[in-house]
Amino acid sequence: MRRRLAEARVGHLATVTATGGPHVVPCCFALAGDTIISAVDTKPKSTFDLRRLANLRVHPRASLLVDHYDEDWSTLWWVRADGTGRVLESGPERERALDVLAVKYVQYAHERPPGAVVAVEVTGWRAWP
Amino acid sequence: MRRRLAEARVGHLATVTATGGPHVVPCCFALAGDTIISAVDTKPKSTFDLRRLANLRVHPRASLLVDHYDEDWSTLWWVRADGTGRVLESGPERERALDVLAVKYVQYAHERPPGAVVAVEVTGWRAWP
Repeated sequence: MRRRLAEARVGHLATVTATGGPHVVPCCFALAGDTIISAVDTKPKSTFDLRRLANLRVHPRASLLVDHYDEDWSTLWWVRADGTGRVLESGPERERALDVLAVKYVQYAHERPPGAVVAVEVTGWRAWP
Repeated sequence: MRRRLAEARVGHLATVTATGGPHVVPCCFALAGDTIISAVDTKPKSTFDLRRLANLRVHPRASLLVDHYDEDWSTLWWVRADGTGRVLESGPERERALDVLAVKYVQYAHERPPGAVVAVEVTGWRAWP
């Protein structure tokens, strides 16, 4: 379960908006211990890019889903990690998080993300089947 | 934007739990006009399968995300449809929804899903880039 999540190249991060609505974005991420790290790397910045950050500041609960799709439905699976998210604007914790992301994604090694980093402390795991 | 969503084989449905937390599951779906249709086809039924239904009964807002991942990040895209979800337990509207799903997925044509159907009336679209 942890391995499947850790090795996935893309996840789907769900948060809750200030008005209590659902929000979900695809994201690259890395698992470091029990912490999921994800950078806001989209350029140019827009209100969409920053929505997840605004959400976490109001509602820190976050959920990251990783799944496998195939037309042979007997091979489907998903893993979900639920936890509490924080926004790292700057400082050494953000720098270490970006180092972890650069190990997994050569794209980040070539160009370090300039923006904030999301760190989700995982408190629960779910998997199917 | 509509075409990309309609043609995608899997989406990610985000809802909000009774306690205000985020919830996200992968799902097969079809677009019929401005309505997204998705069946709860997982067997055996478990609390996980029914969570999305319980969520929608309390918080009807729902968000379906479709995205494309590739290691060439210049080709990434996503489309998100936000709307209001309802649960169709039985009746002709559920039967028509299952007919629509069976056109898109031969898997459903072979075995009609026995459970509830989620119908999300789309009220807003977002896409990136």
